[in-house]
Order: sequence, then C-alpha cells, then structure tokens
Amino acid sequence: MVKAAIVGATGIVGQQFIVALKDHPWIEIAALAASERSAGRRYKEAISDAQSGALRWFCQEPLVEEVMTMTVQNAAEMDISGLDIIFSAVESDQAKILEPKFAKDKVVISTASAFRYEEDVPILIPGINSEHAKLINVQRKTRGWKGFITPIPNCTTTGLAITLKPIYESFGINAIIMTSMQALSGAGRSSGVIGLDILDNVIPFIAGEEEKVQRETQKILGDFAGSSVSPAKFNVSCTCTRVNVREGHTESVFVSTEKGCEVGEVARAMREYKGSANEIELPSAPKHMIIVHEDPFRPQPRLDRDAEDGMATVVGRIRKDNVLKNGIKYVLVSHNTKMGAAKGAVLVAELLIRDGYIS
Amino acid sequence: MVKAAIVGATGIVGQQFIVALKDHPWIEIAALAASERSAGRRYKEAISDAQSGALRWFCQEPLVEEVMTMTVQNAAEMDISGLDIIFSAVESDQAKILEPKFAKDKVVISTASAFRYEEDVPILIPGINSEHAKLINVQRKTRGWKGFITPIPNCTTTGLAITLKPIYESFGINAIIMTSMQALSGAGRSSGVIGLDILDNVIPFIAGEEEKVQRETQKILGDFAGSSVSPAKFNVSCTCTRVNVREGHTESVFVSTEKGCEVGEVARAMREYKGSANEIELPSAPKHMIIVHEDPFRPQPRLDRDAEDGMATVVGRIRKDNVLKNGIKYVLVSHNTKMGAAKGAVLVAELLIRDGYIS
Amino acid sequence: MVKAAIVGATGIVGQQFIVALKDHPWIEIAALAASERSAGRRYKEAISDAQSGALRWFCQEPLVEEVMTMTVQNAAEMDISGLDIIFSAVESDQAKILEPKFAKDKVVISTASAFRYEEDVPILIPGINSEHAKLINVQRKTRGWKGFITPIPNCTTTGLAITLKPIYESFGINAIIMTSMQALSGAGRSSGVIGLDILDNVIPFIAGEEEKVQRETQKILGDFAGSSVSPAKFNVSCTCTRVNVREGHTESVFVSTEKGCEVGEVARAMREYKGSANEIELPSAPKHMIIVHEDPFRPQPRLDRDAEDGMATVVGRIRKDNVLKNGIKYVLVSHNTKMGAAKGAVLVAELLIRDGYIS
Amino acid sequence: MVKAAIVGATGIVGQQFIVALKDHPWIEIAALAASERSAGRRYKEAISDAQSGALRWFCQEPLVEEVMTMTVQNAAEMDISGLDIIFSAVESDQAKILEPKFAKDKVVISTASAFRYEEDVPILIPGINSEHAKLINVQRKTRGWKGFITPIPNCTTTGLAITLKPIYESFGINAIIMTSMQALSGAGRSSGVIGLDILDNVIPFIAGEEEKVQRETQKILGDFAGSSVSPAKFNVSCTCTRVNVREGHTESVFVSTEKGCEVGEVARAMREYKGSANEIELPSAPKHMIIVHEDPFRPQPRLDRDAEDGMATVVGRIRKDNVLKNGIKYVLVSHNTKMGAAKGAVLVAELLIRDGYIS
Repeated sequence: MVKAAIVGATGIVGQQFIVALKDHPWIEIAALAASERSAGRRYKEAISDAQSGALRWFCQEPLVEEVMTMTVQNAAEMDISGLDIIFSAVESDQAKILEPKFAKDKVVISTASAFRYEEDVPILIPGINSEHAKLINVQRKTRGWKGFITPIPNCTTTGLAITLKPIYESFGINAIIMTSMQALSGAGRSSGVIGLDILDNVIPFIAGEEEKVQRETQKILGDFAGSSVSPAKFNVSCTCTRVNVREGHTESVFVSTEKGCEVGEVARAMREYKGSANEIELPSAPKHMIIVHEDPFRPQPRLDRDAEDGMATVVGRIRKDNVLKNGIKYVLVSHNTKMGAAKGAVLVAELLIRDGYIS
Repeated sequence: MVKAAIVGATGIVGQQFIVALKDHPWIEIAALAASERSAGRRYKEAISDAQSGALRWFCQEPLVEEVMTMTVQNAAEMDISGLDIIFSAVESDQAKILEPKFAKDKVVISTASAFRYEEDVPILIPGINSEHAKLINVQRKTRGWKGFITPIPNCTTTGLAITLKPIYESFGINAIIMTSMQALSGAGRSSGVIGLDILDNVIPFIAGEEEKVQRETQKILGDFAGSSVSPAKFNVSCTCTRVNVREGHTESVFVSTEKGCEVGEVARAMREYKGSANEIELPSAPKHMIIVHEDPFRPQPRLDRDAEDGMATVVGRIRKDNVLKNGIKYVLVSHNTKMGAAKGAVLVAELLIRDGYIS
Repeated sequence: MVKAAIVGATGIVGQQFIVALKDHPWIEIAALAASERSAGRRYKEAISDAQSGALRWFCQEPLVEEVMTMTVQNAAEMDISGLDIIFSAVESDQAKILEPKFAKDKVVISTASAFRYEEDVPILIPGINSEHAKLINVQRKTRGWKGFITPIPNCTTTGLAITLKPIYESFGINAIIMTSMQALSGAGRSSGVIGLDILDNVIPFIAGEEEKVQRETQKILGDFAGSSVSPAKFNVSCTCTRVNVREGHTESVFVSTEKGCEVGEVARAMREYKGSANEIELPSAPKHMIIVHEDPFRPQPRLDRDAEDGMATVVGRIRKDNVLKNGIKYVLVSHNTKMGAAKGAVLVAELLIRDGYIS
Repeated sequence: MVKAAIVGATGIVGQQFIVALKDHPWIEIAALAASERSAGRRYKEAISDAQSGALRWFCQEPLVEEVMTMTVQNAAEMDISGLDIIFSAVESDQAKILEPKFAKDKVVISTASAFRYEEDVPILIPGINSEHAKLINVQRKTRGWKGFITPIPNCTTTGLAITLKPIYESFGINAIIMTSMQALSGAGRSSGVIGLDILDNVIPFIAGEEEKVQRETQKILGDFAGSSVSPAKFNVSCTCTRVNVREGHTESVFVSTEKGCEVGEVARAMREYKGSANEIELPSAPKHMIIVHEDPFRPQPRLDRDAEDGMATVVGRIRKDNVLKNGIKYVLVSHNTKMGAAKGAVLVAELLIRDGYIS
C-alpha cells in the first residue's frame, strides 16, 4: 500500500480526502496534519467545537471512524520520512511555503493554485492530459527534487476542460465563451458565502476565478513537447457567478470549432471519449468520463452532480450556435468537490502510481 | 383620465397591473375581466380560495383595496364600450382569440407573445424604440381596426435590449452571446416551477425562451423604415436557465461591437443614455434607464432588482472580452415583473397617451 | 415471489414505490396502473412529457429500467386476478372509490388517508404497533372481504409515533405538543408548493395536517383489545408548517410523561428500542429504528434524512422541559418520502407477508 | 437635536442604526466608532473591502450618503463629551468593557446581552414595559453613574413578549411553550450561518438562545415594584431553530392562560393593544403593535416581516390548544433586525427622550 498524508486534514477539502481514501485499494492514510492549533490532538478532538462539543465534519458522507483516533501533526513540522504521497489541501499562501518543502523528498498532489502556473508543473486531469505527467521529470531535474508537485485544476476548469477535450481532438477549437453558475461548497468554509448573501440571489463575481479558468484550460489542453507544455492557442472568455446550489458547478459553454460539426457528432465524440490510456481502469475513475443527455431539462446540478460518484461530467443541450464561427453550445454539470477537488486529486495519484511516478 | 380594463385580472400579471395602476395620474381602472369562472363575482371573492378562504394575492405590495369590490367580467363577453385601453395579461392562446376582438375598436397593450412577431406589430420599450410606435398606423390601416395591439417584449429580452441600445448607437453591434439566470416569478404561477425542483438546483432550459429573446432583440433594435421594421442585422445566441431567485433576471452578456470601444466608454454610454424623446418624463419611467456599478459584486438580483421601483436596468462587471471581435462583456439585472411585465406595459401606455395614439 | 401492483404508478409516490420494490427479495412488480390517460401506454411513454419528450421521473434515484416497457393499465378497470398486493398511491378521493373495490379480493396497502379513521382499519408502523395487524381479521369479517385495506400514517405522524413509542412504554405519556417544519416533497407534485412561495419563507399552515397527526398518533399508540383499537388517552396539539427543505420533516416535540424520567433514560429507551417482534429482520427495516445524537446541532434534515436509507428516525436535543408535568423535549427528523411513504408501505407489506396475512 | 454615537458602526447592526437614524426628527448621528482597525478612516473607506474595493454595506436600504465622509473613531478611546446617547452595537464581550465606561457619563442603549440580566438594568420594549424605565433611577444611584445602560431584548424574545403582553393583561399566563424558526440575519455576519449549511436544511440549535428567551420574557413581563423587577411567574420552554429565511423570525407559540379565553377574545386583545402610555406617538413606533390575520396561511416571514416598516408583530392561526390548561396557540412573525434590533433600540431612545431620561 502507498502511504499518504493529508495536510490541511481538518478543513473541508481535507475531510473530502479522508472520504475519498476510505477503503482505497492502493493508498492508505498514514498521517494527518493541520495547523499548530490542532497539533498533538486526536483527529476527533481536533474537529470538535470547543464550546458545544459538536463535531465539525463537513461531508455528506458519514464520519470515517478509522481516522478519528489518529494524532494530528503540525503541518510545518510533519515527519514525512515514512510517506509516499502528500495530499495538500491547504490555502494557497500556505501551499507556497509547505509544498516545496515536502517536494524535496516526496510526491505532493495539491488542490491549491500556488504552483499551477509554473512552467515545469503540470495540471493533470487523468484521461484528458495524462501525457503531461512527463513534465514531472523536467521538474525534478530543474529543481533538484526527489519528489515533485502536481496541482489539480481549479474546480471550475475541470468540467470545462474535460468536455472540451473530445471537441478539441475531433474538430479543433478556435475560442470559448463560458458563464458559470457555481455552487456554494466551492467557496470553502472559512471564506464561505453566507446564507444571508446567497439566499434569493446570484453573486456575479468570484475573485480570481475567471483568470484561473482561462489560463488553466489553455494549459491543460496544451501540447507537451519534450520539456514544456505550450498552451492551446484558443482564447477563453468567462463570467463566473455564484448561485444558491450546494454542490455541482453548472456551466453554459459556447465553442467556436475549427472544422465545423453537427450536434450529433459532438454528442458522439463526448459519449465515446475514453481518455488517452485506459485511465478508465483506475479505481476512482468514472466508467464514462462524459454523460450526454438528450432531455433538454438536463443536466441539473442536483440530479446530475453525483453521476458515477461525482466523477463523470454531465452534458446536455448541445445545439448549434449562430454567433461563433462553427459554433456549438451546451451546458455542463461537474461535481466541484468530487472530480473537481479531493477525489480528482486521488485519481491523479492513481495515475501516477500506475505509471510509475510514485514508488 | 384614460379608462383601462385589465383582462386576466385574477392572475399574477393581472394583479401586477392593478398595483402598477394604483394612484396612476393619467389612467384609471374601469373594468376587470377574467375567465368565466370568476365572472359576476366581486374581485375579492374571485381571488379567494374556495376551501380555506385565503386570498390569492400574489404581489409583495399590499392588496389594492380600491378594486376589491369591483365586479369581474367574463373576458370573452366583456363590454368594452366605455374603455380606452385594454391591458391584456392572459396566456398566449387566449390572447390570440381575445386581443384581435378588442383591437377592432380599442387599444390593446399585451404581455402575451401572441402578436409579437407579426410584421405590422411593434414590440415597444419606451426610450429604446419609441419611434416604432409609428407602425401602429400601418397596423390600423392594414387590418382596418380602430384600435391596435402592442405587445411588450418577453421579460428576458427587456433588460438585454435596453443595455444593448446605447452600445448599438455608439459603437454598432456585430453579435451577442447571452446566458440568463432567470427568476422563478417569470415562470408564472399555474405552470410555476415548484420548490421541490428548484431548491439546490439550476434548471438549464426554459421552453421557447431562447428563440423569443433572439428574435425580439433583433426586432426591437431594428430600423423603422416607413411601413415596417427591418430587424437589426446582428445575431443573438442564448442559453436561458432558471435559478433559485424570486424576482429579477440576471444575464451574462458578451457583445461584439463594430467600432471597438473602451470599458469606460461603454459605461459612460450606458449611464448617459436617456432615451430618444423625453420618455424619462413619463410617470412610470425610471430616472435612469441604466445604472452602472463599479463594484464587481454588483449587480445582484436581490439588491438591484428594485432600483427605481424595478424600472431601471442595473449593469456591472463591464470588461473587455478577448474572444469576440471588439468584444465587451457585462452582467445585468432587470426586474422581470416590473419593467419586464405589467409596469413596463403601463409605461408603454403612457408613451402612447403622450404621443396621441390613445385619445 | 409475492406479486404486486402499483396504482397511481406515474405519480411521485408511485415512482417511489417502484424504487422501493426494485430488487426486492420477496415482492415483484407485476402490474402498473394509473388514470385512463396513461392506460395502454408503456410506462416510459406514460411518464414522458408530450411536448418536450422529457421524462417526468421525480425520484433522486435513477430510473428503474425494468418497468419502463411495462404497459400501464387503467386503474378503474385493472385486472387484479393474478395479484397478491395492491400498493395504492392515489389521492384520497380516488382511494375512496378504488380501494374497497380491490379489497374485496386482494390486499391493499395505501398511502392515502381515505380509510385511516375507520374503526376496523389499522394504521400500521411495523415495530411500533405490529399487533394492530390483528384488526385485519375483524375488518375482513365485518366487510365480508377476502382482502383488506391497511393505510400507512400521514408522513408527519410517522416520526412522531416512532419516537413516542419507547417513551410511552417506559414512562407513560400525558400529552404532546409538537411544531413541525415540513419538507416540500410532502406537498406532492400537482399541488406542489411553488418555488416562488417558499423561497425565503415559512408557510405556517398545511390544510388538514394537524388533525391527522393528532388523531393518528392516538390510534397508532392505542391498545388493541380483541376487536378494536382504543386510542391512547393523551392529547396531542400541533402546529404544522412548511419550510424550504426538499426532503425530511423536522419536528420539535414537547412531551409530558406520566412517571418522570431523566434525559439519559429517554435517550437509552429510544436507542434500545427494537420493536415488538423482530421487525428489524424485515428486508426494508432499518437496523436502528431510532438514532439518538448528543451533538446539539443534530438532527438536521439534510444530514440525517437518509440515515439507514431513510428508514431510521433521528433524534437529538433531548432535554428536560419545565412547563409540562414531567416534561421532556427533543427534535426529530424523519424521511417523509421513505419511511413516511412508499418504503414505509413496503415495510408494512413485509410484516404482513411474514405474519401470514398475505399468502 | 439629541446627539448620538454609534459604536460598532461598521458591522451589520451598526449599519442598521445608521439606516434607522437617517432623517430622524429628534436624533442626529454625531459620531461613529468601531475597532482600532477602522479608526481614523472615513466611514466609506472603513467599510470598503481592501482587495476588491467593494463596499461592505449589509442593509437592503441604500447607502446613507450623509455618514460616508464621517471619520470613524476608535471605540476604546472615543471622545464622548458632546454626546447625549451612545447606541452600542458591539459583541457582548466588548460591551462588558465599553458600556460601563460610557455609562458613567452618558446614556447607553445596547443590542448586546452583556447587562440584560443585572438586577438594576431594565430590558425595555416601549409599549410593553415602558414603566420599567424607572429602574434607571435605581441603576444610576446604585452605580453612581450620570448615565445608564438599557439593553434591548434578544431578537427572538421581542415578538414573543409583545404578543404575550395583551394575553397576560387580559387573561393571565401560566406557562409558555415556543418553537422558533429564526432567520439567517440574526446570526450576525462574522459568525454567520453559511449558505452551505442552511441550504435545504434546518439547524435545530442556536447556542444560548433558548436561555435568553426564557429569562428575558419573564423579566420583561415582570412587575416593577419600586426598586426592582420581579420576574413574571410563568415558565417558558423553547426550542430555537434556524431556517433558510433571510429576515423575520417565525415563532410557534402555545400558551396556558389563567382565566381561559376564546380565540376571538385573544385576537381582539391583541388587535386593540395600544401600549401603556401613548408610545404609538413615538416617531419609530408602529401604528399597530400587533397585526392579527384571519387567513390561515399568514403570517409568513417574507410577506409580513416588513409590516409597518418592520416594527409591527404579525400574528395568525390563533386557535385553542387542548394540551395546556386554558391553552391557546398561535404563530407570530417579528422582524429581527428592525423591531428586534437597531430600530427597536431607537424606539427605546425615543421613549427615554420623551419621558425625560435623556436631556
């Protein structure tokens, strides 16, 4: 079994890692780390509210009893000697400090954005750009590390990049316009959108989000050419909004393709898309990367976010667009805290284990 | 005083007409009509639930006591002899039958879509295309009517057309891509989206809506050339969705302009837009047709829908778009049941009274 | 295998029956019936929207493919000859006509209220009042039927009666005061509370609900004495409200006990409550009838409604009450469309099969 | 004009004070104070988000331009020499330190709970227990202060105490059982219930709330007997929950009266209740302290919270209760951030000005 630590283990994403790794066939949780405040306490105490005694367990899934008695370490001083992977679920400013420290010796798979835009760092989605994993070798060499850092994309990028990939392969892409209607869980808990703000409302701005989606989509669909990734040449233009939905990002996408294509061809390309190299066999992989509905009332976040345990991206309303050149438009739903966060990062770990990057 | 009837008076839009006409300086409610079931009953009885006695009053505003004792007529047999205007708030299939009957002698201002796409029928938004009112003379002549029919646009078109107008005038428009996040009240009451469906959800389809917006926007911004309106030449491509918001449609708009323009110029053109012919002086007109926010967290439907009593369109997040030629993107909020429905229709009535179409 | 029909199969409760019976070890779906409009069509066609082709499938669970090609019969003329059980999911006025017709020959288990208050009709909750099943023999005899009718309680009664039972057994009950905060799904679909009404709101009245809860709780906890059930002697006083929750009724309960009891004793009595006669071994039964939380922030409908697949009742905040004599107060969450509806009715069928009432 | 400071002016309650005092006929805002971080900055800067520049203005009402250029003082070092009243909108731990300091010389009217339970401190609701103001004299004497402290009640107590008062006066009260369904705005902003928690949910616990309601209701309806208030003798038992409503607390109340009374008598006593001493003439007072609906679907928080600008308490569903001795039950809605917070505190100031406690 590969031995993993979860850093930021008491937060919402950390807990999602705990759920995603429960009964995992290849990976076991060997260590939990968090801030100094939690250090030295049993996990159960560390997530108990001091005043009321209530457990601060944020997942819909039940408590994972197996980790409740584990002692939480101080992330800044964690003993990483016996570990194989470190899953990093900390905020970006913390990630900047902690992740390079860990990466000197160990593999770091991160949900933070801190290193996503470095030249020698891939942003991996297994099945979409698995071949970018080779950039890890460049990174190791350049930085002189035994380990490495691989962040996953921003949760809003994930579904977009996945659904664009078969279009890109089959028809080419000139440009993308996208409006997102994002779920509350993406806002994290400490900086959470409070009920008072979002009730009976839409919030038309999420700081930094649009830039991330635009840049990451180009990088993920870019070409790996020996020592670096050249970003895909299409432009991406987004407006990212927050709506009153608990989980599941909805995106309204308009794509200009190079070749032109019929609605049925796009649906088929998406339905038949299987990834590049049998990623479908990885334990956390969905059986279908993309599910396409004909019913115009789908996808809906509440009905579709959990498809294939939140790992499939669900598409509907594929139609011609008459504004963009060879335009196609559709709507997608992607589970922002499953495929778009911890479980997506676990899928990256599985890919890297299978392909020999983690020994 | 101009004497008005409200047809469909017991429904949600009918009640909004009652509210919009309360204490109106130029227009008084002279008759109420509804289906045969309500005919002959006092208005208060007609909107009382038979079982519980509860009043089915759907507006946030308090009951308008003045109409409670008026007798509701059967719309199909209404005596229109003493009336000047008939406000029609019925469904489209009813409108097809009733409105031409009324229009033989009287002015019909309608929220239904039944006649919007007829060649000799203008879709009026005062201040945006007031000059299209001249098409009324063509209509009267062609059809041999003493009266005429003027529908208002679909509520999703209204805010879009208003915000596009100053852009169109100042910079020209090549094309428009729009994703709407529409409020529940637009769904009407009988065919209402039920709480069970929309809670924790987005519904990615509203039957017929996208076609309406595309076609109406072209017609409203089209040129009136003597005897007909030639639709504006730009294409419009939309995805219309429903979100968990009570009132106020939010729209994420991407526009390709002809000339190119800076963000500041667009903001200024919107802010300074005053309409074509002093429509601002009409009793129900907003003081500012468009309000532009710099705060990136605006507009929000809950905070901005009621601006200038729901008659202003509120815009924010004006930015450059890098996908469309000379691209500009922004977000708007428009009150779908005020400017977008009954009160918008009353504003049309005011324009037509001022300009001599209603005597 | 016992052969069952579902009457009202195209509605929301009917579909919940289909889900509850999928892969059932003892019962198979042998017939589906609905109104005349659906008769003669395949189930899949019968639930397709004529205009859009969208499937009107109301459950969170995926479509049950096995029934999609079954032909729907006209409920009024259904051929019941080969059937053992008829699950009735029709409205109460329909139930009044259809259920006695079926009961002449067959067993009818119903979610409708039509026969709940008849003297010779038990309202069964397996594990709570299984012994009331004996009233079936009286019913058969009195009415000269080969079959019989057993309705389940109103969904708001279910959780209340279950949690009261161990208190009643251990400490006796003088009186109960209850305020419910009920989910939207309980409102049904045709008469559904629309999103417009419940958003940012509480609705303080549900027609008929309070009377049902008061009467049914007394009957369920009443004594079966040979030929009839004498209602329990305590009074019940409720206020039933609707809140913006999709599934899961929350109830705030205040109980006056006869004996007096400590908080810990009540928690223990609830936790250890196992039902009267091994009902726990029935296929749809929860492993724990009642789950008791110490965390004061529980139960919450979103977190607790699905406990043991929606068949457990979840309790928290057990405290002393200082107003009622020997007062105890607590909060419960009960899944109104699982234990409180179709799956609860299937549990009744299982009890009746096991105990020989259905051959 | 009476000169007032608002302490805690940048928070949500502080901003509600600014709104409540805009254009006030008797009181003007002479100073604003907050934490050290805001000290020395213009109010507009103090409420601007450092990163985005967005204004953190939490009220539905528009920005009060008049205060935007006022300089915010450090609350701990505020110059109080020219002031008459200090409205305190700080958290309870801050209030414990700051309020006695201010009260040595000045009148402090507070929304914090810090001093509510002191023997010589009244909890005032004008019209309900205005005569308790006389306790101020005792307080001044005991403590040797020129000024004094008068807190308003917890927002959940307010509506309860108001509706109980006419019952108490006319029929006497033995005991009260209450379940609240409280709005999100009551949770404050820093410790706000986040959207993720409350969406599709009810939270069955609000720390400390139930104890406050029980104790404060007894004190408010207690007798002032020369030098102290003896709490009313009835017991109060509550369960306080949070629901997905923005503003407006809903409470389901069960009351045991001493005398017994008919539903109509209770409705009349509430409707005719006018307060003790012409409080109705105070500028912020509602014209009707209590509004009683016959429609069983009222009160609803969204429709009724704003009655008389949020200063009236709205009651419905008055019925007999058959559990409590001479039992009556009803539902109330009270605006928790108007009558229940800042504007309620301004009403207290008006009472004290009129009656000569503030010179």
